Formats: sequence, C-alpha cells, structure tokens
Amino acid sequence: MTTRALNELRPVTVKRGFTRVSPGSVLYQCEGTTVLCTASAEAKVPHWLLGSGKGWITAEYNMLPHSTSPRKSRERSGKVDGRTTEIQRLIGRSFRAVADLPALGEQLITVDCDVLEADGGTRTASITGGFLALVDCLLTLERPDPSRFPLRDSVAAVSAGIVDGRPTLDLNYEQDFAAAVDMNVVMTGGGRFIEIQGTGEEATFSDEELAALLALARTGIRQLTQIQQEALGDAWPFPIIA
Amino acid sequence: MTTRALNELRPVTVKRGFTRVSPGSVLYQCEGTTVLCTASAEAKVPHWLLGSGKGWITAEYNMLPHSTSPRKSRERSGKVDGRTTEIQRLIGRSFRAVADLPALGEQLITVDCDVLEADGGTRTASITGGFLALVDCLLTLERPDPSRFPLRDSVAAVSAGIVDGRPTLDLNYEQDFAAAVDMNVVMTGGGRFIEIQGTGEEATFSDEELAALLALARTGIRQLTQIQQEALGDAWPFPIIA
Amino acid sequence: MTTRALNELRPVTVKRGFTRVSPGSVLYQCEGTTVLCTASAEAKVPHWLLGSGKGWITAEYNMLPHSTSPRKSRERSGKVDGRTTEIQRLIGRSFRAVADLPALGEQLITVDCDVLEADGGTRTASITGGFLALVDCLLTLERPDPSRFPLRDSVAAVSAGIVDGRPTLDLNYEQDFAAAVDMNVVMTGGGRFIEIQGTGEEATFSDEELAALLALARTGIRQLTQIQQEALGDAWPFPIIA
Amino acid sequence: MTTRALNELRPVTVKRGFTRVSPGSVLYQCEGTTVLCTASAEAKVPHWLLGSGKGWITAEYNMLPHSTSPRKSRERSGKVDGRTTEIQRLIGRSFRAVADLPALGEQLITVDCDVLEADGGTRTASITGGFLALVDCLLTLERPDPSRFPLRDSVAAVSAGIVDGRPTLDLNYEQDFAAAVDMNVVMTGGGRFIEIQGTGEEATFSDEELAALLALARTGIRQLTQIQQEALGDAWPFPIIA
Amino acid sequence: MTTRALNELRPVTVKRGFTRVSPGSVLYQCEGTTVLCTASAEAKVPHWLLGSGKGWITAEYNMLPHSTSPRKSRERSGKVDGRTTEIQRLIGRSFRAVADLPALGEQLITVDCDVLEADGGTRTASITGGFLALVDCLLTLERPDPSRFPLRDSVAAVSAGIVDGRPTLDLNYEQDFAAAVDMNVVMTGGGRFIEIQGTGEEATFSDEELAALLALARTGIRQLTQIQQEALGDAWPFPIIA
Amino acid sequence: MTTRALNELRPVTVKRGFTRVSPGSVLYQCEGTTVLCTASAEAKVPHWLLGSGKGWITAEYNMLPHSTSPRKSRERSGKVDGRTTEIQRLIGRSFRAVADLPALGEQLITVDCDVLEADGGTRTASITGGFLALVDCLLTLERPDPSRFPLRDSVAAVSAGIVDGRPTLDLNYEQDFAAAVDMNVVMTGGGRFIEIQGTGEEATFSDEELAALLALARTGIRQLTQIQQEALGDAWPFPIIA
Repeated sequence: MTTRALNELRPVTVKRGFTRVSPGSVLYQCEGTTVLCTASAEAKVPHWLLGSGKGWITAEYNMLPHSTSPRKSRERSGKVDGRTTEIQRLIGRSFRAVADLPALGEQLITVDCDVLEADGGTRTASITGGFLALVDCLLTLERPDPSRFPLRDSVAAVSAGIVDGRPTLDLNYEQDFAAAVDMNVVMTGGGRFIEIQGTGEEATFSDEELAALLALARTGIRQLTQIQQEALGDAWPFPIIA
Repeated sequence: MTTRALNELRPVTVKRGFTRVSPGSVLYQCEGTTVLCTASAEAKVPHWLLGSGKGWITAEYNMLPHSTSPRKSRERSGKVDGRTTEIQRLIGRSFRAVADLPALGEQLITVDCDVLEADGGTRTASITGGFLALVDCLLTLERPDPSRFPLRDSVAAVSAGIVDGRPTLDLNYEQDFAAAVDMNVVMTGGGRFIEIQGTGEEATFSDEELAALLALARTGIRQLTQIQQEALGDAWPFPIIA
Repeated sequence: MTTRALNELRPVTVKRGFTRVSPGSVLYQCEGTTVLCTASAEAKVPHWLLGSGKGWITAEYNMLPHSTSPRKSRERSGKVDGRTTEIQRLIGRSFRAVADLPALGEQLITVDCDVLEADGGTRTASITGGFLALVDCLLTLERPDPSRFPLRDSVAAVSAGIVDGRPTLDLNYEQDFAAAVDMNVVMTGGGRFIEIQGTGEEATFSDEELAALLALARTGIRQLTQIQQEALGDAWPFPIIA
Repeated sequence: MTTRALNELRPVTVKRGFTRVSPGSVLYQCEGTTVLCTASAEAKVPHWLLGSGKGWITAEYNMLPHSTSPRKSRERSGKVDGRTTEIQRLIGRSFRAVADLPALGEQLITVDCDVLEADGGTRTASITGGFLALVDCLLTLERPDPSRFPLRDSVAAVSAGIVDGRPTLDLNYEQDFAAAVDMNVVMTGGGRFIEIQGTGEEATFSDEELAALLALARTGIRQLTQIQQEALGDAWPFPIIA
Repeated sequence: MTTRALNELRPVTVKRGFTRVSPGSVLYQCEGTTVLCTASAEAKVPHWLLGSGKGWITAEYNMLPHSTSPRKSRERSGKVDGRTTEIQRLIGRSFRAVADLPALGEQLITVDCDVLEADGGTRTASITGGFLALVDCLLTLERPDPSRFPLRDSVAAVSAGIVDGRPTLDLNYEQDFAAAVDMNVVMTGGGRFIEIQGTGEEATFSDEELAALLALARTGIRQLTQIQQEALGDAWPFPIIA
Repeated sequence: MTTRALNELRPVTVKRGFTRVSPGSVLYQCEGTTVLCTASAEAKVPHWLLGSGKGWITAEYNMLPHSTSPRKSRERSGKVDGRTTEIQRLIGRSFRAVADLPALGEQLITVDCDVLEADGGTRTASITGGFLALVDCLLTLERPDPSRFPLRDSVAAVSAGIVDGRPTLDLNYEQDFAAAVDMNVVMTGGGRFIEIQGTGEEATFSDEELAALLALARTGIRQLTQIQQEALGDAWPFPIIA
C-alpha cells in the first residue's frame, strides 16, 4: 500500500486554528495518523514551583476509542494504561527540554494530544504537531519579559526501525508491528538530541544498526522542522533554518 | 454576539467521512459546538441478547478536556460524572427508539460522540450528528435481511428554553446558563416524540410555557431533519420529507 | 394482583420520625415500594456558595441490596451506576426548584432516600416522601430570618405511562417493565411543573399520548399533595389547598 | 441517660417480616441501635465449593449515612473501610460456625445488616438479629434432606467492657467511647464460644478482668437467646432452652 | 517435617539494622516465615491530634507477591483485602496499647511489616519483630522529655490453636489450615493482655479449651519477650525480666 | 561520600536463594540500593499465547515504602504511578529480548523486583539482579526440550549520565538528581543492545555526548556480566566470557 522509499517521511498536513476555544489548536495528519493537538494555559503551577517564578509545561495523550479498528475501550476505569502514561510523560519532557520556564512565568501549559486516527507514529506526531499548538498558545500569553520567548528551540520527533532487516524511517502501524527494533528520536531544530528510545522487540541490535537508525532519524527531523517552519510562517519564533 | 431570531437554529455544517478508520464518521458543527460522531460495529451483543438474533445500539459521550475554557480534566479517575452518564444513556435510547434490532442481527453498534468544542447543545448535536454516522455505518454492514434497514425513521434533537422570560430555540452556552427552564426534545423525522426532558433550573413552569417550548422544538426538529436529508443525499434510507 | 383503575394511585402510608437520629426521618410506602427518607443539615455549603449567604439542598438515592429479588450487589465498587446518578440528581433538583436558598442560610441539607423495597416508582416515592423529611428537618433549623421558610411550595412526583396501549397512572414494576412510554412528572402543590421526563422505551409517542399522560400525572400529583398535607398536619408550612 | 445496671442488657424489640421482598427480614432494635437484617438465597456458591454439594453463608454490613449524627458519607468510593470489612467478616464467620453446610446444599445465603440508627453495639445487634433473619430464610428454602436443618445451634452476640474501671455489659456509644477494654463475644445457645475479641483501647487488661468480662457476656448471651426463642416462637428450630 | 513439641515455639532469628535507610529495620524470621519490619518517623500527626502534643503509632502490613506459592497478586487494584486491613489495624493497636503518646510528641511512627516469606504466624511475627524496629526507631528520635521513653512495656504476640483436638502453640501454615480453633494473643512483657482474638473456624470451643489456649500463649509470650531482650541487648528500654 | 572514579561501578554483592519459597530469589545490592529479585513460574500464559506452545516472561517492580527517606506511600490506591509502570515494562521487555519463548513452553515467569533500599539505579539493579533470579528459576522448571535453555544470552543494565558536564557511570541518587542527561542501557553479555533510553532532563545533548555515554555503559555492562557469571558459577547457562 505504501510505496515510500525507506528513508522517506509520510506526507504531512497541518491545520492551525482547528478549534477556536484553545489558543493553540492544530490538526496534524500524516497519512492514516491524525492527532488533534491543543495547548492552553492556566494561572497555576505544580506545588513544587509555587512562588518560584517558573512555569511548567505538561502533556496529555489519549487515543479516542474509534481511532483504531476494532474500537478501543475508553480509559475511564481509573487505570490509565502503561503505554499512555509513558507517552504523555515523553511528550511533556520533550517540550520542557527546550523551555525557558522562568520566561514563561508562573503558568501551566497543557498540551493535549488526542489521536483521532491511529496508523503508527502517534507519539511522534503528537510531539511534532503539539509543538505547533504550543507555539500558537505561547504567542497569545502575556509573559514576564515580552522580549524573551519561553522556548529556546523547536522540537520534532520521528520513528525509525529495522523492518525486514532494513533500517526504515517513519513506521506506519504495519511496519511498526513487523519491526525487530523500534526507535523514537526527539530532537531540536538545532540538531541536538532530547530523547532517544531504542527498543529491541524480542530482538537485539548492534552498534552499526544503532548508527543507521540515528542517521535516518536525523534526516527525518530536519524535514519535519522545515514543515513546522512553513506551517507557522511568520509566527516561527526562531531564526530560520535554511 | 448572536443575532438569531428566538425561533431560529444556529447554522449547521456537516462533514461526512471525517476519519477513515470508522465506517461512520461525521464532524457536526453548529457555531461554537463541534462534535466528532463516529459509529462502528462489533460482532458481539450484551449478554441478555445472546442467541436472540437481535442487535444493540449504544452510545458514548465525552467532552475533550480542551473543548471548554478553562480546560476540563479528563475523566480518567474511574468516576464518569453524572452528567456524562445521563447524556450517553439518552443518546443510546434515542437511537434504539427507532431501531429494528432484529433487522440488525447480533451486532453491537457504538456511536461515539466526542465533543471537540462546546458552546451549548452538545447532547442534541450528538444525537443529530450521531444519527448521520449511524446511518453511514449501517450502510456498510451485512445484515440478516438486506431488504430490511435496521432503522425505521430518522432522529434529531434540539433544545429550547425560557431565557429572559421568552421561549427560545437552540440555546448556546450563554443562553443555557441564563435559562430558567431548559428542555431537550428528541423526535423522529415523522414527527413523533422519543424523549422530552424539561427541567426548571431553580424555577418552575406553566402549561402554557410547556406548550410554547414544545412548538419551538417541533419547528427546529423539522429543519434539522431537512439538513440531515441533504447531508446524506442518496444515502438517506427513508422516504423523502418535503 | 393489582386491581386499581388506570387513573388510580397505589395506597400510600407515611410514618414520620421513623428514626431518631435525623431531624427528618420518614418511612414512605406505596404498596411494594418502601423508601426511608431522611434529611439532615450540616454547617457547610458547596465551594461555589461560600460566603454567598445561600444554602444548598442535595439528595442521595440508594437501593439496598435486598430491596429487589434477586438481591442486587452493593454499589461499593467506586462506580455509582448511571441510573442511580440520574435519580439523585433529579431529586435534588426538584427540591431546589422550590427552595429559597438565601432563606436557608449557609447550610447544606442532604435528603437521603434509601429504598428498602422496590416495586416501581422508587424515584417518585423518594421525591414525595423526601419532601416530608425535608420539611421536618427545616422546621428544626435556625434560619437567618425566622419569618421566612426556605421552601416556597410543596413538591410531589408521580409516574404515568402507556401500558398495553392505555395511559396508566403510578406504574408498579410489572407495569413499568411493560410500558412503551414512561413519564415521570414532578410538580408543585400549586400546579406548576418542575420536571417532565418522558421516554419512549424502544418506542415513540404522539402529541395526544403526551397530553393524556400529563393529564393523568396532574391528577395524581393533586392527590399526593393532599396526602402530604395530611401527613404533616400542623407542620404543613404553606396555605392549605382544599 | 441510661440507668441500667452494669450487668443489664438494653431492652430489645424484634419485628419479623419487616419487608416482603426478602424471605428473612427482621428489624432489630435495642434502644438507639436499629438494624435491618435480611437474608436471601441464591443458587450459586463461591468457586471453591462448586460441585462440593456444600452451601455458603456470607454477610454484608453497612451503616446508612444518616445512622449517625453528623451524617456519614456513603461507602461508594471503592474503598470499604477497615472497620466495615472486619465486621462483615465476623458476622459471616459466626453463622458458619454453627452451619451444616452440606445440609444447605449448593446455595449462597447472604445476610445483609443495614444499620438504620447507631448507638453502639451494631455488630452484636447484627449477629443477634441477623440470626433471626437467617432462620426465617432457611425455613423457606428447599434443602437436600428436609429432615436436616442447616444450623446446629443458635447464635447471639453481646459486648462487654471496662468502663470507669467497672466491668459493664452491652455498651452503648457513649460507654464504648469511654471504655478502656472492649470485648465482643459470640456464643451459641448451647453455651460454647464462637468468637472472642478483646481489645485494650490504649490500655491493657489482667486475667481477672478477662474473667469478669467473659462472665458478663455469658449472662447477656443467655438472655438474648431467650429473646430469640420468643421472637421465633414455633419457628425456633432447636430444642427449647428453659 | 516439624517435630516440635505442642508447647514449643519455632526457632527465631533476628537481624537488626537490615537496611540503612530506616532508623528501625529488623529482619525477623521463625522457620519459613520472614518479615522485614521497619519503623520510621515523620513530623506529622493525624488531624485529630493536631496541637495536642501527642504522637501516633500506626502500622502497615503487606505480603509480597512471592511470599507464598503460588504467587499472590499485588494489592494495587485499590482494594486492600479485608485480611490485610484487619492485621494492620491489630498491629498498630498493639503498639499503641503500651505507648505513652504525649512522651512521643507530635510525631507519626509508621511500622511497616513486609512479609518476604509466609509459613503461618505472619501477624504475630510482625508484632514481635515490629516491636524491635519500633524501639530502634524511638531510640534515634528527639523527644519532648528525654527522660521519658514513649513505651511503657514491651509487646509480643503468638498464636495457639486446637489442631487434631490438641491445644498447640505457634501454628505454621499447615497447622493453621487444619486448626478448628485459632487464637492470636498479644501481651506485654509484664504479662497483661493487649488483645485476644479467638475464632472457631466452622467450629466452636468450650471454656476449658479457651483456658488451655490462653495458658499456652502465656508461655510462648514469655519466651518471645526473652528473645526480644537478648536481641536488643543494651538497647532494651525496660527493667530486665529474668 | 563516594570517591569512585567517573568510569567505575559501585561495588555489588549478590545473595542467591535469599528466600526459599520462590525458585529464584536473589538479594542484589550495590551500595545503598538493595533489590529483592524473585522469579516464579505459573502454568498459564496471556490469552494471546493460549495454544501457541510459547511461554511469556513478565516483571513487576515495586519500591517498598521504607526504601526511601522520607517514607513513600504504598501504591494501593489503584493508581500505579507512571514511573513504576515504565520500569516494569522495561524489565519484562529486556528479558524477553533474549528469551526463546517456545523453548519455555506455555508457562508464565514473573520476575518480582522489590526495592528494599533505593539510592539510584533501582531499575538497572532490578534487571541485572532479576536476570540471576530468572536463571535460577528456569533451572528448576521442566521444559519441552531439556536440551534447549529458554534464554539465548545474559542481560545486564547500567546507567550513565552527564553530571557537572562530565560523563559518569552508574549514577547514585545524588548524581542522578544532578544529571543533565540520564541514560539507561540494557545489553546482552554478547555486547548487543536491548534498550537505550537517553533523556535530557530540561537539557539536550550532542552526538559526542551520546557516544561518550554509550562507551561508558558498554564498559559497565562488561563488568556486570562478569559479576553475574561469578554469582551463578556452574549454573551459568552460556559460554564463559573471559
């Protein structure tokens, strides 16, 4: 069904301002994966930051029950499953790695990533799309020092894996299911790592395979950063990366 | 902000096939209220219908946390709040009132109504939009007798209320908040009642007020049925109502 | 078993002061339905009323496990089922519709309706009996202005439905189970509506049927108000309705 | 307020057949403590008894929220508190100690003890009253061998304690609160122990005090057995104890 | 396998300072039962003691999943089972019976009893071993009056039961399973009772059997107190009992 | 306090057979971190493996409340926190990466890692120590083909991080707290990667820093494999690595 090259991203479409109620609201789609990323601010911080002058950025990730086939039960039982927890912790950490929390002031930003359709790569789509919602939200906020934007760099994420023995970029569900090694990489627009999570799925991997996956991921991140820049246009808050 | 007449509906837009993973997937919007209604089928029924040859239709309703401002916490604590429960029971009941469950065969249809933006009337939008997703889903299913469609009539819903002493149709959030009496009416395309829920909000109401609200609702339902007919076009499974 | 006319109520017995620990404590019985209604006051209000000078009235509804046959499990699992939630919200709303909350002062009244035996009509019995417990409780309280009673009118409730094609008043379990349309009506002693909930049970209903059910309900409410007046005797806090 | 002698029981009243829906239904009252004890049977057993030909007797204990002043929250949070759990385990164990479970056949008897008013001694009232409901229920059941009654002896329970340095029988709430040592004793009509639970409340006790409390309890149990005999009249399934 | 006399304890080994992070940390072992007892202090008290100058001692009891064979599930479901709750309430009560809470000052001591291996008698081992951890912890604390130790006496616990018709001391799992009557006794080093819990397991017991079990328990407690004295050596905070 | 070189491991001690009830039971200690790792088998598999002939290996991770100072509450509330979930998923995945699940047959192995004392590196200690318990357990099991051991290679794990700008091996709590980048690496004895998790803690990292951390980790893993080999002695099921 997909005839992409192994080092090619799935095509991405971005719709900013998808809903009006959240200051940041982005519908991010890459083929069969669609995530509604919204960002909103509240005048509160976690208790350990009270009085510190610093803000906080957190994320919630959720797959709507009809995002998969067969339909998945809602997580209303009081048990958020382990995978959901891991992913939302990852998203929040990724944004905080580039945040200037004192520049935010004592505000809490929540980035909600609701997966409307899932075909692999929902966590990386949530980070790449959620970054856009986060910027849109931050642009509407008053901040302690207007000249200081609360993010130091952009953030994007992509997956890579060993599928049928070959390093492959941006796995869809079918590829992810077949992968022996699965890696998620979060990087800044400036090319520094934020997070590397490489996992053998009932398999192990060598130094060479690690190097190949990291190289693929770096290529993908560069293109995604370009897409983010275009989507934000004049709202891009960093120097342009050619 | 709204300059509608008191007996006028908010403008409605409908997008069928919004996501591809569910056989029925409708983005239903009336001004600031946006609901993603999806319908999907599973080859199972509640235990009390096992072996009966009859199917079942159920619904789930959920407000996404960023559908309101300020943001609302996710219902993950194991406690689905009373309002949510009431609404999703109402939606399911409304569809079952016109269903021909033996014509469905032993299948479970779940209509998910996820509110992306809330500005009043989310339960009636869920019913009116969910009906469209339900039809789209039913059209894809195999059924015991192909000549027998599992719904006998269409379903639409609208609210009406006493706002500032005047009977008013299709309340948005601000109007709903100000209303002394709030009524939700679910009706068939053929003009029969499915559900009437009229509530005095720290107030009571007279026979005359009841009559006025029911008349308004009947007008609104007629227009919504027209909108449903246009949205489904050739897929409309009932005789055309002029 | 029951040979009532279709427009006749089940016989009602009322025992005030059933337990001594609650200021209002009423054992309300109509044939096979027995509800222990108690009302008690606490010197607190919900957070949104703090400092407002207004009180609040809330209700809890619970079916004891042995109120039905077969026995029903206790709701201890952390999930109060949807039906319970709907009913207790309805009961609370009904009392608040006639309440003069500033006249109550900052106090919380809880009306507990514990169903000891269930044979249909437990929610309407809870409202009609709970109203008596509420009055008994309010009479023991100090209030900001002793000359101003915190209720403006009495409240009673009754069901009506279409059973075997005929409009029928005050359904017992067997009738309720067989009903195509089920309606619960809450009214004031003065004849104004507080709540109308009419539901087609896998059925729909016409304007004429609606009118017939409302007429039956009105008759029933008038008699129940009479019974309430007699039960309270000199404690009846409103003008006598002949 | 109470002018009982230290070795005197509180007066007891028993109403059998209080509700009609359960085969055993007893309203048991000793001054300010009122417990509704019901017993009902189901055609099931715990998994470890499947196919064994033996039945099981279990109990549930619950304080209604309005049984105390101030009102107590319902245990709906999914956490049954430790005290409730201890008490209902004790009640079930007490009945099983005299049960002939093979004579019961594969049936589950549940004795529900719902405390309507609490003034001390609710667990012992639950056992003494619950025994009566249990007998009434067992008398309605078919059993494998009609000549073999599924209980071998009667069961009653009473408390005793050291209050103000003096051994005292059948503590009410005020006495229980003041007691340095608190003992609950469950015995058979034939005078054998089923359970002894003696607890120093931030205090310890000597051999002599233990002996005095056991002697008081024995006296109380003898009188309660007499009361049970009278309440059941001809239904008393054991030899009469003079 | 065990060739102990019926009135003989299982051999006990005690390791103080087993972990370094808790001020009291004792590995207590009697044959196949191993409990890690730790005690630690926090500068807080339950709300009802705020400002009273008194401290509190509480306990938690937990069986690790691998302490039994087959493995037992972790109690993470939000439901602590009834047995666990009963045991940890018993342990806490036992220590408080000899505590001088004003001498402790406003501090909360938690004694954690984690069962690493279970072969019967885990609750009595938790009390006997937990007492040692408690003393070690108390010795490290600052207290309002250094000359006043917050415990008045030592505490130990042992079980006894009727196995194969014979009174038997210190039951292991196999004996406990076979016992018709099971008794747990908690006593002070000075020979006073703190708690007696005697239970017929689908059986009853006579005065003579009660006396025999109490005598056995008294013997066992005397030896355990001796073992505690030796384990603490110079840290024993009470007069030596020869 | 610690005077280790930056590329030096903390000293490790291993005690096999720590408890007798589990076939694998290892007390694993590296300075202030002590983990009790046990492994046990049950004759069941997850539902998706029923009838497949394959077994499964899973893990549970738990910090005892007294493993930290101040004491940590038990996870009994029904919410296992995100960190715990992440860690136990990691541990299970690590063992499955080297497992030969068909060689295990339809059995479920659970590796329980209970942290008795925590001073950093509890997840890596759980993997390195848990591997030893797993081998001990597997050696006691019957398996479909006795000549085929269900593991293909050994597994060990270690952390590395950037502390004060310098790459550092095997972080204790204080170092972990101070680290800008934190990486956990799981590898086989044969030198292949199983998992790499590198995270910037409100920081990012370069290619060079990644390379330095991976090199350190590789050194640590080699030494830990040596320690595992010595601990298992003749039970080491793989070729000796010199």
